[in-house]
Amino acid sequence: MRTGIATVCLSGTLKEKMQACAIAGFDGIEIFEQDLVTSPLSPEDVRKMAADLGLTLDLYQPFRDFDSVTEDLLSANLRRADAKFGLMSRLGMDTILVCSNVATATIDDDGLRAGQLADLAALAGDHGVKVAYEALAWGKYVNDYEHAHRLVEMVDHPNLGTCLDSFHILSRDWDTAPIEDFDPDKIFFVQVADAPKLSLDVLSWSRHYRVFPGEGQFELAKFMGHVVRAGYTGPVSLEVFNDVFRQSDVERTAVDAMRSLIWLEEQSAKWLDANAASALNGAGTASGGAGAKAAGRRRYPMELATLPQVAEPAGFNFAEVKAADTAALETVLGQLGFEFNGRHRTKDVQLWTMGHARVIINEQAPGAVGSGAPAIAAVGFDVDSPVIASARAQQLKAPAVPRKSQADEEVFQGFAAPDSTEIFLCQGSPDGIAAWINEFGETRGSVGGLEVPSGARNAVIDHVNLAQPWQHFDEAVLFYTSALALEPQPYAEVASPSGLVRSQVMQTSDRAVRLVLNLAPVIQQDGASETGAGASVTGQRKTYQEHIAFAVDDLVATARAAQERGLDFLQIPANYYEDLDARFGLDPAFLATLQELNLLYDRDADGEFLHFYTATVGSVFFEMVERRGNYDGYGAPNAPVRHAVQYDHLHQLTSPTNTITY
Amino acid sequence: MRTGIATVCLSGTLKEKMQACAIAGFDGIEIFEQDLVTSPLSPEDVRKMAADLGLTLDLYQPFRDFDSVTEDLLSANLRRADAKFGLMSRLGMDTILVCSNVATATIDDDGLRAGQLADLAALAGDHGVKVAYEALAWGKYVNDYEHAHRLVEMVDHPNLGTCLDSFHILSRDWDTAPIEDFDPDKIFFVQVADAPKLSLDVLSWSRHYRVFPGEGQFELAKFMGHVVRAGYTGPVSLEVFNDVFRQSDVERTAVDAMRSLIWLEEQSAKWLDANAASALNGAGTASGGAGAKAAGRRRYPMELATLPQVAEPAGFNFAEVKAADTAALETVLGQLGFEFNGRHRTKDVQLWTMGHARVIINEQAPGAVGSGAPAIAAVGFDVDSPVIASARAQQLKAPAVPRKSQADEEVFQGFAAPDSTEIFLCQGSPDGIAAWINEFGETRGSVGGLEVPSGARNAVIDHVNLAQPWQHFDEAVLFYTSALALEPQPYAEVASPSGLVRSQVMQTSDRAVRLVLNLAPVIQQDGASETGAGASVTGQRKTYQEHIAFAVDDLVATARAAQERGLDFLQIPANYYEDLDARFGLDPAFLATLQELNLLYDRDADGEFLHFYTATVGSVFFEMVERRGNYDGYGAPNAPVRHAVQYDHLHQLTSPTNTITY
Repeated sequence: MRTGIATVCLSGTLKEKMQACAIAGFDGIEIFEQDLVTSPLSPEDVRKMAADLGLTLDLYQPFRDFDSVTEDLLSANLRRADAKFGLMSRLGMDTILVCSNVATATIDDDGLRAGQLADLAALAGDHGVKVAYEALAWGKYVNDYEHAHRLVEMVDHPNLGTCLDSFHILSRDWDTAPIEDFDPDKIFFVQVADAPKLSLDVLSWSRHYRVFPGEGQFELAKFMGHVVRAGYTGPVSLEVFNDVFRQSDVERTAVDAMRSLIWLEEQSAKWLDANAASALNGAGTASGGAGAKAAGRRRYPMELATLPQVAEPAGFNFAEVKAADTAALETVLGQLGFEFNGRHRTKDVQLWTMGHARVIINEQAPGAVGSGAPAIAAVGFDVDSPVIASARAQQLKAPAVPRKSQADEEVFQGFAAPDSTEIFLCQGSPDGIAAWINEFGETRGSVGGLEVPSGARNAVIDHVNLAQPWQHFDEAVLFYTSALALEPQPYAEVASPSGLVRSQVMQTSDRAVRLVLNLAPVIQQDGASETGAGASVTGQRKTYQEHIAFAVDDLVATARAAQERGLDFLQIPANYYEDLDARFGLDPAFLATLQELNLLYDRDADGEFLHFYTATVGSVFFEMVERRGNYDGYGAPNAPVRHAVQYDHLHQLTSPTNTITY
Repeated sequence: MRTGIATVCLSGTLKEKMQACAIAGFDGIEIFEQDLVTSPLSPEDVRKMAADLGLTLDLYQPFRDFDSVTEDLLSANLRRADAKFGLMSRLGMDTILVCSNVATATIDDDGLRAGQLADLAALAGDHGVKVAYEALAWGKYVNDYEHAHRLVEMVDHPNLGTCLDSFHILSRDWDTAPIEDFDPDKIFFVQVADAPKLSLDVLSWSRHYRVFPGEGQFELAKFMGHVVRAGYTGPVSLEVFNDVFRQSDVERTAVDAMRSLIWLEEQSAKWLDANAASALNGAGTASGGAGAKAAGRRRYPMELATLPQVAEPAGFNFAEVKAADTAALETVLGQLGFEFNGRHRTKDVQLWTMGHARVIINEQAPGAVGSGAPAIAAVGFDVDSPVIASARAQQLKAPAVPRKSQADEEVFQGFAAPDSTEIFLCQGSPDGIAAWINEFGETRGSVGGLEVPSGARNAVIDHVNLAQPWQHFDEAVLFYTSALALEPQPYAEVASPSGLVRSQVMQTSDRAVRLVLNLAPVIQQDGASETGAGASVTGQRKTYQEHIAFAVDDLVATARAAQERGLDFLQIPANYYEDLDARFGLDPAFLATLQELNLLYDRDADGEFLHFYTATVGSVFFEMVERRGNYDGYGAPNAPVRHAVQYDHLHQLTSPTNTITY
């Protein structure tokens, strides 16, 4: 599959965009007219630069408001087209995107329209230019891709074809199957964009909320499957208008974009495999029996590359926190009921376990990068083959993370997630014991001689909650989907004192791995602007906190043991328990226990959920949960309480005795 | 009018919110349940704190999903209500908001619904609580305020009334006139929110995009007029869910909110005056003749305060730039054709004029606040009475700006705009000469002995363009609307290399004053996150630029004179002129002149627009424009070019000779 991207997807100057596309590995680009018009580079400069960078210039776009106009306007439009065709010859480009008319169309007549497009095609022919005509979803008369294609067929000129844009097709819920019957020689270009399902006017939706494939909710693999079956072999190019991408680092966005096409290529191949039989029948080509599926796909002219295949991870292998001073982390883990399992024989790391839950404390050397405050550093996942999973991740542009190891030690295959958390792929063993724990010393024995509480002997990591910077949220969703085979769930929003927090669960089908991505609001502190010109926002401060949650069999017993060991619980306001009682009418003794131990509670049709939080250490805190019945959530109704109490602590505005001070 | 605000409008803890509301001058507040549940303050604490702060606790909200349910659910809901009524008695509150059922309603029967509401009213009566029943715009069966009111009438219980929320009414385009016929004793509460007109699903619209009155597009004065005519005298309370407000500084947002209610109060009175005759007729009260309008309003039970009245400003009096080192500003003004008109006799400021355009250069003392880089500091407007206009601004919570002046000098009435630009209200004189220019010394004479170019002898300030931080944009719109009587126009978005720039014109009806507010995207530079926990966005950098535009009679002559004086023009790419020719088919000699002088061009049905920009000095640059015919815009199609070239300069990525370097 030839990959491409429109320059309008990215931030920066044309030059910066082209360089980023080359680095990310795109085959070619679409030149968005405004990027050229505003550039100091001459068309010849752009042509040379593209050649130097190994990028083909696949599409000049957009040419607007051509068809369905009066005679006068047609002449002006043809003159305008003539100028652009001349420009394209200087750029060395041969394909231009012409959108169906939005603004100046006044005559709704397919015969007249076809005649005008024929005039354009003839002029294009003189310049050796191919015109790719596209139905915009909000085109005045032409807003359906089949309509655009019918016009192309009516004109029947070698220099006129159509451009298929997944956004304009899927946003209108048009059926994509008819694409298969198109003459592939008349499909001059294919643009892909994904989008979340929004009930917004389609123009605003299109201009602000498109995302890269895999980051939205469109059925793009199916769309591409039909395109491939049609016999199309040209570029598959991203055209994504997104407010966030346009503000983000250009090289990083280009890599995110490239990842989305690699993933789409694989998904398209899978869709073709899964739908091979029907396609063969549908296409009338008699074929069947064993092997027909794979054979079916391979017969299409477009080559679809495959990636190393992985199953979803079987579970968490470990979570790693790091700190320059590890004392506070050791204390809180000990109080929670973790056992100290010794130090690594060659590295400055400690192993702490509770049941099957393993936490590594990484002792940062003084002067290492970062503040040194305790933070989540890494998450390890159990996979069938770390080597295959790592190869897949790297083909998906995940940056590998080097981790030094001695010859006789377990080699961790690791890479960096978009938020810079390190992700390690580990070999899970059948008995649930990680191979690498033998690398830890014999100096066992829990801190203070304590043991894992009885209610926590089967503890596992229930979920890990990672905060995502706003500009990398969509990227993170695609990353965990594509590289780690986690399934994104519909996202929720929970209230906090500093705004709504978007919360997105990524999980495996058996829930052995649950990863929660939180998009935190930008908390800003208003300092009076110092300059009269104003407009400068100073002193932005981030207060992201992240946590690791452990599931136990008996939360009350676990909490009581932790209380006895002096754990600093997150203090839950009394008002919460009154409200809990109003909502659920709980047994008074049970309610009293919840309140005594600062436990939170939720209930739904599937079961019950009990949990508590520790105070925050650095940017990390811990949660203990007990799932009763088939409760599958995370206590979302309690999230605002957690956020408010943490906010309060952070701002130190409330005295511990809850007295009123002004 | 009694003013109120829901705590959910604001960021922070309940305590922070209450303090901010008291400082902003609200009479009372609505307590959003989640703010109480998540607070460490006991209900008694909240009650005492409100009393200490002089705030009434007007509404406890919301109680959800009560009506239209099965018998079982009704019992549970009554038990839940009983708990909340008990809580309210501890808070000392007597009114609760009950929303029409969204989630659990299963029986659509007004008789049953009224019966259930009667049960609730009876229980409320036992506790001395008043239930304000509100139709949510997306209520399952009840989503029309008249329907809610009919139910209240059916029940006919002293403890059941209705709550009118402008969002739920106006978002559905319901007619508001029927409100007038409601029994005022049955209107227990009124909530107001404005919103931009969006074609978005109403729930998302409501939860994320509400704004304070005057910041959106709802006809709130009319809504309030009907409420007043109905005879309602209770609180008018803001309930605004907005993603930005929730993240903004709480005290500042509270002041913005208070300003919106003061403005709404005035607008409501004006609407009543303007519609007094029809109301009197409509209400059947025979009255007429002179004075009927004012009399008509005063007869309503709700008192509506008035503000000092001002007309829109007659023009710009001056613009002020400041710098620690003023040399660069002096140079560029001199090159543009400004004359140096001397120094002020007591202050460190210079006066520069070109025709009727006056620019003050403020020489900042070393060590003054701010970076000292050149920036726009202030704008002066001609108004009929600076004292009255200033009184109005201050009643609208505009912070006054002290400006020292000697006894015999012109006193400037000034205040600070939300972006911290200083706004001065000046007395314009009939001959167009500002009174204060006599305070400038006799050391006249232009720099280098040059004079104002012939084409610029009638120059005026055409517009001033101020950048707005994202979190204060709506506030700024309301500020200039309410305090300065400027009229907001529909906003546009223009592309820039770092994202879309929202551009909002505020102007007077005769266009003597044009103020352009730009919401710049947040440009962020991705530094690799240093901590393994990731999620920290560091190194955000702002690149807001602002400018002052001057209109002249002959732009070509003005530009040529500036070129001869060595002005550093913003360099416009050659590609722009090719595109211009393709679009407009200009006369070749004219096109060559445009290109030679780096002029930009636009044309529409009303006229033509020529303009050029200077290079940026500090954060300020200048624009010269010529309006031909009735052209009323700002050359929006050229804005992306300007942004791209400025971005390029800022990033210093392009060599002046346009050669390709990697």
